[in-house]
Amino acid sequence: MSLDNISCQKSFGGWHKRYRHHSKVLGCDMVFAVYLPPQAEQGAKLPVLYWLSGLTCTDENFMQKAGAQRLAAELGLIIVAPDTSPRGEQVPGDPDGAWDFGLGAGFYLNATQQPWAQHYRMHDYVVEELPALIEAHFPASDQRSISGHSMGGHGALVCALRNPGRYRSVSAFSPISNPMDCPWGEKAFSRFLGDDRARWREWDASVLLAETPAGSCPPLLVDQGDRDDFLEKQLKPEALEQAARKGGHELTLRLQPGYDHSYYFIASFIDTHLRHHAAALGRV
Amino acid sequence: MSLDNISCQKSFGGWHKRYRHHSKVLGCDMVFAVYLPPQAEQGAKLPVLYWLSGLTCTDENFMQKAGAQRLAAELGLIIVAPDTSPRGEQVPGDPDGAWDFGLGAGFYLNATQQPWAQHYRMHDYVVEELPALIEAHFPASDQRSISGHSMGGHGALVCALRNPGRYRSVSAFSPISNPMDCPWGEKAFSRFLGDDRARWREWDASVLLAETPAGSCPPLLVDQGDRDDFLEKQLKPEALEQAARKGGHELTLRLQPGYDHSYYFIASFIDTHLRHHAAALGRV
Repeated sequence: MSLDNISCQKSFGGWHKRYRHHSKVLGCDMVFAVYLPPQAEQGAKLPVLYWLSGLTCTDENFMQKAGAQRLAAELGLIIVAPDTSPRGEQVPGDPDGAWDFGLGAGFYLNATQQPWAQHYRMHDYVVEELPALIEAHFPASDQRSISGHSMGGHGALVCALRNPGRYRSVSAFSPISNPMDCPWGEKAFSRFLGDDRARWREWDASVLLAETPAGSCPPLLVDQGDRDDFLEKQLKPEALEQAARKGGHELTLRLQPGYDHSYYFIASFIDTHLRHHAAALGRV
Repeated sequence: MSLDNISCQKSFGGWHKRYRHHSKVLGCDMVFAVYLPPQAEQGAKLPVLYWLSGLTCTDENFMQKAGAQRLAAELGLIIVAPDTSPRGEQVPGDPDGAWDFGLGAGFYLNATQQPWAQHYRMHDYVVEELPALIEAHFPASDQRSISGHSMGGHGALVCALRNPGRYRSVSAFSPISNPMDCPWGEKAFSRFLGDDRARWREWDASVLLAETPAGSCPPLLVDQGDRDDFLEKQLKPEALEQAARKGGHELTLRLQPGYDHSYYFIASFIDTHLRHHAAALGRV
């Protein structure tokens, strides 16, 4: 597994670096970004927060706009931001060129239907291949947490709930909470997973949370703006709330008055999320 | 003077808003961004920090990438980010379509040569028309400071030095410190101002600083990364340092090891600049 460093920029005493590598899982070259806090140069292995971005994003959006590096540098957290789908000429995108499916919109699942099944395996990439790479090449421990925004909030919740014990904590901004029951999710799931809605349940955070045994869900924080244009039709945090109640899980769901779906919202509350993860990762 | 609000996003308890208006000075429609901290809703008039961006930028780069809102919200500073040149079909750009002159590259001066003189009057726009608009439409006092990056660092220094008493403090990241003596500046000045280099001196921060009477320069902070690709050929902070010595001015010039020319550098040190301005503006 070789990594090509494509950029390196100092940030808050640490380093923002981007790498290209060949992903066996996805069958294409991928780019990811890593923020290494200053403590990474002192030898000790540091815990890692994985950040999953939303529709249309790449590894760059979070690193440029969330303002997470300041506190990550203080807390000694590594942050890893993968891309949002497989990429490259061999990777099929939305047949109509839409932005809510395919390239930039991999939904962090393993597709079972053709022509998607060959490359669209973002779940296995994010949960297995990428952490193996990170832990082999950087001063990263196997203590992991995961967070994300919108489609990436769905991804973070699903990765954590499908893989008990793998993440110490999970959080999300404006997640697609119940993709089986919203237009973005129905479009993506029907293509990636086929028409059998029973198979969709394995990739729906609200379904998974309701079925997770009480006491086995990692600490769970969700922020949602109440002026988010996608709130009612696509995001549906009330489904997550009901699932938490049903499953007997503690969910901190904060409805933030006046905030929208943008990175201005994420930046405003990223510190709380970093502290949430740092506490679970033993950094505070 | 009417303002059309084109977006409004909550950020750290305050608001990031963008406006379009017709500029009489520039003879075209312009867009600017304003960050209003939470204190702006409490009635008192707040001081304003003007931020001037670099080549190719618009009002958006700083607001999206610098991470300034967190501390501005705490300190009660309004931040205003104008565009970097006049815009529109009637505004001539670089004849060769280059990115370092014309559209997105107005150099914050008043052009005297055709075809630039009609629209390229960014100095008067930034120093006079825009503050008048801001102070008429927002809870903004007439206490002003100014900062910027690269071409905008040059702009901030020149606006402050040409207009004694107008700004309480000035700062810059990686400014073009001596534009008369670097390729970017020579290209822009020869076109905007003509071939008589004596006229260029009025728009060169190092010349202006050397000629400013001791004691009449506002508090002056400059940060410069030592891995900035433009450092030697274009930025030349040593010229500013010599000018400060010659003029008897106190200049805090910090060479930051490992940092480049990007917003990752700006974000890493924006807090120090905000505190520098807040101190001069009576907010700390």
